[in-house]
Amino acid sequence: MSRTNPQYRLAARPVGLPAASDFRYAEEEAPQPGEGEFLVEVDFLSIDPAMRSWMNAGRSYVPPVALGEVMRAAGTGHVVESRHPDHPVGEVVSGTFGVQRYALSDGKDVGTVDLSLGEAPLHLGVLGFSGLTAYFGLLDIGRPRPGQTVVVSAAAGSVGALVGQIAKIEGCRVIGIAGGPDKCRHLVEELGFDGAVDYKSGSVRAQVKELAPQGVDVFFDNVGGDVLDDVLTRLARGARVVISGAVSQYNSEHGVQGPSNYMQLLVNRASMTGFVIFDYAPRFDEARARLADWLREGRLKERTHVISGGVERFPEALRGLFAGENTGKTVLAL
Amino acid sequence: MSRTNPQYRLAARPVGLPAASDFRYAEEEAPQPGEGEFLVEVDFLSIDPAMRSWMNAGRSYVPPVALGEVMRAAGTGHVVESRHPDHPVGEVVSGTFGVQRYALSDGKDVGTVDLSLGEAPLHLGVLGFSGLTAYFGLLDIGRPRPGQTVVVSAAAGSVGALVGQIAKIEGCRVIGIAGGPDKCRHLVEELGFDGAVDYKSGSVRAQVKELAPQGVDVFFDNVGGDVLDDVLTRLARGARVVISGAVSQYNSEHGVQGPSNYMQLLVNRASMTGFVIFDYAPRFDEARARLADWLREGRLKERTHVISGGVERFPEALRGLFAGENTGKTVLAL
Repeated sequence: MSRTNPQYRLAARPVGLPAASDFRYAEEEAPQPGEGEFLVEVDFLSIDPAMRSWMNAGRSYVPPVALGEVMRAAGTGHVVESRHPDHPVGEVVSGTFGVQRYALSDGKDVGTVDLSLGEAPLHLGVLGFSGLTAYFGLLDIGRPRPGQTVVVSAAAGSVGALVGQIAKIEGCRVIGIAGGPDKCRHLVEELGFDGAVDYKSGSVRAQVKELAPQGVDVFFDNVGGDVLDDVLTRLARGARVVISGAVSQYNSEHGVQGPSNYMQLLVNRASMTGFVIFDYAPRFDEARARLADWLREGRLKERTHVISGGVERFPEALRGLFAGENTGKTVLAL
Repeated sequence: MSRTNPQYRLAARPVGLPAASDFRYAEEEAPQPGEGEFLVEVDFLSIDPAMRSWMNAGRSYVPPVALGEVMRAAGTGHVVESRHPDHPVGEVVSGTFGVQRYALSDGKDVGTVDLSLGEAPLHLGVLGFSGLTAYFGLLDIGRPRPGQTVVVSAAAGSVGALVGQIAKIEGCRVIGIAGGPDKCRHLVEELGFDGAVDYKSGSVRAQVKELAPQGVDVFFDNVGGDVLDDVLTRLARGARVVISGAVSQYNSEHGVQGPSNYMQLLVNRASMTGFVIFDYAPRFDEARARLADWLREGRLKERTHVISGGVERFPEALRGLFAGENTGKTVLAL
C-alpha cells in the first residue's frame, strides 16, 4: 500500500528565530517496514523549545539534527503496518518520530501509550517528557521542602505549569514568572500558584522580592538570560537552582548571555545544577503513575494548545512557541 | 603607655584595580583596652584576593568595608595589654584585625594560635583560611573520588596550591591552571601536580582537553571569567564546579562576566556550587589538625611570600597580588 509522507527536513542552521526557509518541505513515499520493523502513522507532534537547540551544530545532550535530516520531534501515533512481534497494527505508541506523517521504527525508545491514563496529547505533556522533566527536575534536583518558596520561569509553558503545581502538592509556596496579565492570571486563578511575576511589566527582581521576601529556595529555570540573573539576586541561603532550559537564549545571534550574578551562588551557599531527563528512564513508570494519579484527582491540570492543519504548519507552530503565544502544552495535530 | 598606630582606612570605592588613593594612611594613637578588652600588636597580615570584593558596596557574604573604616584584613599578632580574663599579655592570636599595627578586641572571633603546629604566617595560610577554604571546598563541595580528575584555577595561589595537593592526597589526577612557565613548573615539579595549564600561553580549553581527555570531574574555581567558561566545556558527566572566588572579575569596570557556557551544566548533568568558609567553623579544629598532620608529614607544602616593610606597604602588596606576582601565600610583615 502506497502512502504519501509529508515531512520537514532541516535545510539550514537558523540564525536567530527559525525561519520557514530553514526547513525544506517534501512529500515522499512512506517506507515499507522490513523484518523487525513497523510503520507508525503519527497523530500528534510535541512542539518544544528544545527543538531550537537541536538545530544548532555542536555538542549538546543529544547530537544536532543533521542538515537534510527529518526534523526531530517527539510524537504519538498508531501502528499501521508491522513486521515486529511486540508492536502490532493498531497499537498506540509514543517516540521520537520526527516532523513527518509516517515514521519507520525498530521499536528502540518507543513506548506503548496507555490511553487509560489519559488521551494521546497528554502523553506528550503531563504524561510525557514535560511531566517527567517537571517531576524529576523539581523533586530530585530542586528537592523542595514543605513551606519553602519555589519560583519557576516560563511558568505558563508546559513544563513550568507542571513544576508549579507539583510544588504546590509538595506544600510549597509557588511563584511563577510569565509574560503578560492573561498568563499570570491563569497561573494564580486556575493553577493555584501563590503569585505571578509578569516579566513584561516592570522589574522581575523587584516583583520576586515583593512576592518572596524571605528569598527563593528553589528556582526552576527554563529561560536563562535576564530572568535567571534577576532571580539569582533573590536566592535564600542554601538555594537550589535547577537548569532545565534557556529558551531566551536559544535564538540568540550574539552567543549565550551567561549569568553575571553567578557569584550569588557563593554568597548564598547555593547550587546550580543541570539534568537530562533520559537519565531517569528507569523511573519513568513510577513518575508517570504518580502524575496520572494527580491528574485523575484533579490536582494537576494541563491546558493543551492543539494546532490543527498537519505537518505543513510545523514552522509556524514553532515560531508561535517562541513568540510566547501559547499557554500550556503545544501540540501539532497531523 | 602611648603607642603609635599606623593604619590604612578605605577612602574611596575603587574603580578597577585598587589605587593608592583609594586608601588613606593615618597614624593614630592606639586605643586603651577597657574592661573585657585587650590590645593586639599585629605581626602579620594576610593579603587576599577577597579584599577587593570587600571594598565594593553592595550585598556579599560579608558587609562591605565602610568608607572611612580601617581596611579589613586577617592577621596574627600578640597581646600587649589585656583586661580580658582569657587573653593574657603575650598570647599569640589570630583574627580580623584590619590593616593596622594595633587592634583592640573583645575576643570575638579571635583564636589562639598554636605555634606547635607551625609558625605564625602559616596560620594565615595552610593552617588559616586558605587551608580551611581548600579543605572544605574541595572535600565537602567538590567531593572528589580517587582516580577522578581535579582541575584548580589560580593554582599557584594560596588556596589553589593547597587544593591541588589535597586532591593528590585523595588519590586524584590534578591539573593546575596558572600564569607563566615558572608557576606551572612549580606546580608540577615542587607540588606534585600531574599537569599544568599556562593560561598566558594558548587556549585553556585546548590545554585542558589535552591534559584531561576524559573530562574534568571537579573544577575548583578561584578565577571566573574566560577560564571558567573554558573549563565548563570540558566537564565530565556529573562534574562538580566549586565556586570559591572570581579574582579575574573583582577589578572589572564593566560588570561581572557571567559564564556563557553554563548550559554545559545541563549537558553534563553537572553542578556549580558556592560556599562560605565561616559556615564550617564548628569543624575548623578537625580540619586544622589534619592539615597540620599533612604539613608535618611533608605531604603539604606552602610557599609563603613575605613582604616586609610594615603597614605602609599594604596598597603595593595588594596590587602585587592582582598582578599575579606571587606564588603561594602573600603575607605582609608589620
